[in-house]
Amino acid sequence: MTPNQGGITSVVIVGTGLIGTSAALALRRRGVRVYLVDRDPGALRLARELGAGEEWHPGDRGPVDLAVIAVPPQFVAHELLGLQKNDAARWYTDVASVKALPLAQAVQLGCDLTTYVPGHPLAGRERSGPGAARADLFLGRPWALCPAPESAPEAVQAVLELVALCGANAVTVDAAEHDEAVAVISHAPHVASAAVAARLAEASETALGLSGQGVRDVTRIAASDPRLWTGILSGNAGPVAAILEAVADDLAEAARALREFAAGGAAIEPVTELLHRGAAGTGRIPGKHGGPARRYEVVQVVIGDRPGELARLFQVAEQVGVSIEDVRLEHVPGLPLGAVELSVQPTAAAVFAAALREHGWQVP
Amino acid sequence: MTPNQGGITSVVIVGTGLIGTSAALALRRRGVRVYLVDRDPGALRLARELGAGEEWHPGDRGPVDLAVIAVPPQFVAHELLGLQKNDAARWYTDVASVKALPLAQAVQLGCDLTTYVPGHPLAGRERSGPGAARADLFLGRPWALCPAPESAPEAVQAVLELVALCGANAVTVDAAEHDEAVAVISHAPHVASAAVAARLAEASETALGLSGQGVRDVTRIAASDPRLWTGILSGNAGPVAAILEAVADDLAEAARALREFAAGGAAIEPVTELLHRGAAGTGRIPGKHGGPARRYEVVQVVIGDRPGELARLFQVAEQVGVSIEDVRLEHVPGLPLGAVELSVQPTAAAVFAAALREHGWQVP
Repeated sequence: MTPNQGGITSVVIVGTGLIGTSAALALRRRGVRVYLVDRDPGALRLARELGAGEEWHPGDRGPVDLAVIAVPPQFVAHELLGLQKNDAARWYTDVASVKALPLAQAVQLGCDLTTYVPGHPLAGRERSGPGAARADLFLGRPWALCPAPESAPEAVQAVLELVALCGANAVTVDAAEHDEAVAVISHAPHVASAAVAARLAEASETALGLSGQGVRDVTRIAASDPRLWTGILSGNAGPVAAILEAVADDLAEAARALREFAAGGAAIEPVTELLHRGAAGTGRIPGKHGGPARRYEVVQVVIGDRPGELARLFQVAEQVGVSIEDVRLEHVPGLPLGAVELSVQPTAAAVFAAALREHGWQVP
Repeated sequence: MTPNQGGITSVVIVGTGLIGTSAALALRRRGVRVYLVDRDPGALRLARELGAGEEWHPGDRGPVDLAVIAVPPQFVAHELLGLQKNDAARWYTDVASVKALPLAQAVQLGCDLTTYVPGHPLAGRERSGPGAARADLFLGRPWALCPAPESAPEAVQAVLELVALCGANAVTVDAAEHDEAVAVISHAPHVASAAVAARLAEASETALGLSGQGVRDVTRIAASDPRLWTGILSGNAGPVAAILEAVADDLAEAARALREFAAGGAAIEPVTELLHRGAAGTGRIPGKHGGPARRYEVVQVVIGDRPGELARLFQVAEQVGVSIEDVRLEHVPGLPLGAVELSVQPTAAAVFAAALREHGWQVP
């Protein structure tokens, strides 16, 4: 790991849950001095044992560079006020999943907004607590920053540095816009996942025994801590309700169409139309690292029109450890030649193309 | 690959889409002679080029051992009748996602039920067509079999052999029970995934830029072919509608509770309660290979109560390429010793335990 050359050399993490401890581990890897505090002594101890930092004794030293408040949304402003009163840090941020609420409460409590930049890393797991923490949790993930008009440029700079040290990509966005955004890309999907999973609670053992990867993916996040998520959802109640109403309407409409179809009645178009809208929507999700909305890279190869040549091409892929995700074949009319398009992980494309060339294939 | 020692030596695959071609590839690996037929010459050609088998010319030879009908649910019975009239195979099965409909149509068309065993492998991808096929698609997956009372034991035996050759786990279940089951563990989750993804079609670029892993998982299957899925859903309309109605009701109720909460009103309990039901439901999904509903294996280690020891233990994990999914720490009161429970992928547990012992740790 490259040591941190920037301005942040000491950080206090307030709250050693999944996010706080993961940030602490990431900062430690970059040589930052990390102090930890949590009102749960067990969580604090586990975070320390994991190498996330040392216990914070506020009286022992002057202010640290940055305080990261990693507590549930409804407690952020209260923590901020206490830290600022004790002059704990030069700059302050938080990592709560909603942003309008803590900002409004900070105004209400009379916190100093010049030193505070609200933030939210879009990273999480279905497990919580310091034991689930990972130094690489934020790698390549978006990290929203919602500076207030009062936020000092130096405070924004310090928090941008935190984001960079954690390997995440900063996205600056207005707090209200942030909350609308996470309602549609995080909070409502979470509740929908729970509603699908709730049906499994009543399903037969036979049904559960037939579970494939699809239902596992759809319901993975439903395994998250209900108490934690009640806090998040209540902090963004209006925007989440609006999305859930639209989802519920679409599902009720699909159910109606299926009922009518089963009764020998009307056409099934509303269901097909919903599936089309769904495919269009999921196609808009950008690549993991902020690239275009394409999951695979296409490697083009010219092959002879002989049976078995494609199979040999797959053997080469296997030899170099590349997984082929999709194949398209285009024959050149009148010629014993074809062009084949192989979809592979973007990181594997170059290796694969080189291996194919080495085996004598034409890769344009 | 071990060659097939059993009774099935020749198979015709009718329909070289994702499932048909994957089964063909799996059978070829086990030395079975595979014949292919598809009304789309492009799909048939691609399957052949991938090494899935040779083109079928029904007149050239006697009946094969088994015909696998891999066409959409509404065409299964029609194909079955045609194959039986030509005496194409000794035994017949299909792989459609619904089972009551093809069975009822087979009865209606006067098919011979003694040689036919309806089946359904619970495996799929969000991509379709022969280009997305994989020989290992069925490995460790459930494969439902729904023999009719008329099905001959020899027919059941032949289809069980097909399932074994593909590396899947056979689950025998009544056709109606199968359809109720897949409504809850596959079809309704699919529509719910589409309804969540449909919201992304209208979301802002900013919102999409904040997408994390959660929404990707929930909406992955929404990328599937809408036409294919309309066929599946229409073939199981009643059971799917019932589940979708319950999901829609839960989501509408959660939206109501959030609206009231946002207005400063009632408590948010209905939301918490739904999240709890969701967590209970997802916890009932069995392990991938049919084991108990636990995703990770726990490795127990005894460690000294010194800071950094846990971090060193993580270093060993990293060295042997094992990812630690969760950590729990239990201190022995009055002694400078602790027991730590590390959750890892079941396949990694033995390797990890050995590496820890090698480094001097006590692993009971």
